[in-house]
Amino acid sequence: MKVIVDLCVVPMGVGVSVGKYVAECQNVLQEAGLNHQIHAYGTNVEGDWDEVFAAIKRCHERVHEMGALRITTSIKAGTRTDREQSMQDKVDSVVEKN
Amino acid sequence: MKVIVDLCVVPMGVGVSVGKYVAECQNVLQEAGLNHQIHAYGTNVEGDWDEVFAAIKRCHERVHEMGALRITTSIKAGTRTDREQSMQDKVDSVVEKN
Amino acid sequence: MKVIVDLCVVPMGVGVSVGKYVAECQNVLQEAGLNHQIHAYGTNVEGDWDEVFAAIKRCHERVHEMGALRITTSIKAGTRTDREQSMQDKVDSVVEKN
Amino acid sequence: MKVIVDLCVVPMGVGVSVGKYVAECQNVLQEAGLNHQIHAYGTNVEGDWDEVFAAIKRCHERVHEMGALRITTSIKAGTRTDREQSMQDKVDSVVEKN
Repeated sequence: MKVIVDLCVVPMGVGVSVGKYVAECQNVLQEAGLNHQIHAYGTNVEGDWDEVFAAIKRCHERVHEMGALRITTSIKAGTRTDREQSMQDKVDSVVEKN
Repeated sequence: MKVIVDLCVVPMGVGVSVGKYVAECQNVLQEAGLNHQIHAYGTNVEGDWDEVFAAIKRCHERVHEMGALRITTSIKAGTRTDREQSMQDKVDSVVEKN
Repeated sequence: MKVIVDLCVVPMGVGVSVGKYVAECQNVLQEAGLNHQIHAYGTNVEGDWDEVFAAIKRCHERVHEMGALRITTSIKAGTRTDREQSMQDKVDSVVEKN
Repeated sequence: MKVIVDLCVVPMGVGVSVGKYVAECQNVLQEAGLNHQIHAYGTNVEGDWDEVFAAIKRCHERVHEMGALRITTSIKAGTRTDREQSMQDKVDSVVEKN
């Protein structure tokens, strides 16, 4: 099952600057070979469900290893069975209507 | 790794009444033996990371099998390494301060 | 316009225990006279759109005043024009199907 | 109070293709003069809290007017009092660490 995910990992109790933790999550997604795209409030990821969620778990493990005692993560996960749709297709379907 | 999750599965293109799909997700969580508690905008679930996310995947599979062609799900996932905390502990920690 | 909201306010950089901030947000909702119900990963609120979102803004203001330099909040907001539906109705519509 | 928001408006009961509704929300943000950037699972918006949330309310009103009887929207809202930070700054703070 293919999934498109929006991921926002928030380490708590490590101060207000969390860029290095988010950067490490980008590394995890890169190592997993998943297509991903950062934006100002999270990261879009697409791929096989199991691979995507295994990578999200590794993000939690890695951010804890970096010293964050608590993490709260927001995920949006979209699946569809009617047709294939990439992250770029989703953006295009809106832009072409404007 | 223990996780507390807030889960909100939204089937798209099946009309405005989605109660039966949400009820089926409750069944999935029940069958998985996971502690869960419904509220007005989702369901809290606690358990082992792999078991919880396997159940979320089954929710998507089951809701697609029921005829929903598209699903968008919101998940919040919390982990902590400093101490054990149950869903009830989280509510209690707020209520006792009021 | 009536809205049902799920609200999760996360103060960043104030340590891993954030119960007192969440408790203060409960006070804000109470002072606003809004029907609200805490759960393990947020708080459900129902009421007029403008009143609910004014209260959410006050939550941010209050939590900043308490010393949190950064806040990230997750909100789900549901509106419908086909019929009135309370937070309890939403839970009932699922429970009666199981 | 300045806010950076991630917005994902989901019309329910209007079929699986919702691009025209999302496109209309882009129009609303444009008309409001707000800096915004679409991505594959939502739209980032930055601006004054009151202006941003007034625009989100107009998105709900407009999408209902287009015929959607039910809408469920996910919002992430970030505020900080320690310093100014734009949407681009947030992305840069991660990218420069990789």
